[in-house]
Amino acid sequence: MSRTSVFRTQVEFGDCDPAQIVWFPNFFRWVDAASRHYFVSAGVPLWSELTRTRGIIGTPLLDCQASFKRTATYGDPIEVHTQVPDWGNKAFTMNHEIRSGDTLLATIVEKRAFVRKHPDDPARMQAIVVPDDIKALCAGA
Amino acid sequence: MSRTSVFRTQVEFGDCDPAQIVWFPNFFRWVDAASRHYFVSAGVPLWSELTRTRGIIGTPLLDCQASFKRTATYGDPIEVHTQVPDWGNKAFTMNHEIRSGDTLLATIVEKRAFVRKHPDDPARMQAIVVPDDIKALCAGA
Amino acid sequence: MSRTSVFRTQVEFGDCDPAQIVWFPNFFRWVDAASRHYFVSAGVPLWSELTRTRGIIGTPLLDCQASFKRTATYGDPIEVHTQVPDWGNKAFTMNHEIRSGDTLLATIVEKRAFVRKHPDDPARMQAIVVPDDIKALCAGA
Amino acid sequence: MSRTSVFRTQVEFGDCDPAQIVWFPNFFRWVDAASRHYFVSAGVPLWSELTRTRGIIGTPLLDCQASFKRTATYGDPIEVHTQVPDWGNKAFTMNHEIRSGDTLLATIVEKRAFVRKHPDDPARMQAIVVPDDIKALCAGA
Repeated sequence: MSRTSVFRTQVEFGDCDPAQIVWFPNFFRWVDAASRHYFVSAGVPLWSELTRTRGIIGTPLLDCQASFKRTATYGDPIEVHTQVPDWGNKAFTMNHEIRSGDTLLATIVEKRAFVRKHPDDPARMQAIVVPDDIKALCAGA
Repeated sequence: MSRTSVFRTQVEFGDCDPAQIVWFPNFFRWVDAASRHYFVSAGVPLWSELTRTRGIIGTPLLDCQASFKRTATYGDPIEVHTQVPDWGNKAFTMNHEIRSGDTLLATIVEKRAFVRKHPDDPARMQAIVVPDDIKALCAGA
Repeated sequence: MSRTSVFRTQVEFGDCDPAQIVWFPNFFRWVDAASRHYFVSAGVPLWSELTRTRGIIGTPLLDCQASFKRTATYGDPIEVHTQVPDWGNKAFTMNHEIRSGDTLLATIVEKRAFVRKHPDDPARMQAIVVPDDIKALCAGA
Repeated sequence: MSRTSVFRTQVEFGDCDPAQIVWFPNFFRWVDAASRHYFVSAGVPLWSELTRTRGIIGTPLLDCQASFKRTATYGDPIEVHTQVPDWGNKAFTMNHEIRSGDTLLATIVEKRAFVRKHPDDPARMQAIVVPDDIKALCAGA
């Protein structure tokens, strides 16, 4: 099992909609931040550095499945608990639990891939096998 | 089968991330707009009017499954084609296809429910059976 | 002089645009959060509670003047230092300095007003004189 | 006087805040889109093409002054009328009027500059004199 990271933020007034609750695309905003924090907290360099040194642009989302159980409003604390249960070959699975205090708000399961610029056409991206050194950094204690 | 609606927009510079492509939470922003346009284009009043007249606040998202196939960048046109294949009982299914020209960018399947303020506690929401008159407005030609 | 509050966040990947820098509307997102945190950190209740107890909806923005000096990218820490140099009568001035470490990124001067629902028409808002108890809570040490 | 462009959009549910009105950073989102549309509608190539052909990255915002007069809610149409009253030397002025139908919602005056990658350090940007061919494309009829 991989390590777990926790990304913390707070619901702001502007994150809420006329129904007074979090407008749901903001959950995906937090999950995208949590996904990047997972790698940074494991010691993986920023994408901008990996682009320069190894041509790795980031980990775009291939698909996701989200289940929204409870909502939250401004002032509520948010924690996103993130783990990688399976590195797969060219697509890894990332599980996020979004919590506010003891309440589970949502679970989001993502499939993402490490991509680099296509060697024949820098405008295209190409999925690569998850690098072993990155897997090693993310291994659980 | 229900009617189909088409919501049109365009990718803007600010919708794109440092990898020069649409930052994915924006796909959910467009799909949320498409979901509302589906009902408006069928003749359903705005949520603000339904709140006043019938206590119906809107159709929050319960869960969704998204598959991202191709991406887009600023200047590209976006169309979201929306349909309701199944009204269920208290949760209906909404299918969205996000296209740019002839290219299918993503499919998103949502489960949403019509909700109203809970009669015992206006701070809570309560799912209701999809109203028959709204189903009738959304029936296919 | 009023008290000063500091709102802390971090630039995320999705906050940046294809030029790899903060997409500027996000500076206004952080400043809006900083504006709310200013009052919360002084002990003023959440707008949702003030709406219930005193009909005060919040402090919408009337105008602002922003000067952008330096930019930032993802991973950079952000601090917004906020102060109220002048309570005026029905419109107060709020000064924000946005910093990243020792670097001043931007200054934003806002005019905002406390508003409540109009007594004759709840769909309209009406500016009110800044309440004395709120001014007292925000007084400097 | 320069040509005028009109950028059209619509307020969506997710653009509004718990006070049921447009959350103000969205006005800046629309104005940023309007600023890009101004150049595109005049025949200036996309920034991505100008980056490739001439090293011009875009027109980042240096400062702005915004005055909010009326607000809007979801379903309301939005038009941003944009003009360049003064090209200056290395910073031009761009005026935006945000309207909904016949109602003027806000005016925003921006100072922006054309920038290119710094020749000594591609991570930095450098303001350039507004190119004559771009000024010519934007001249009024």
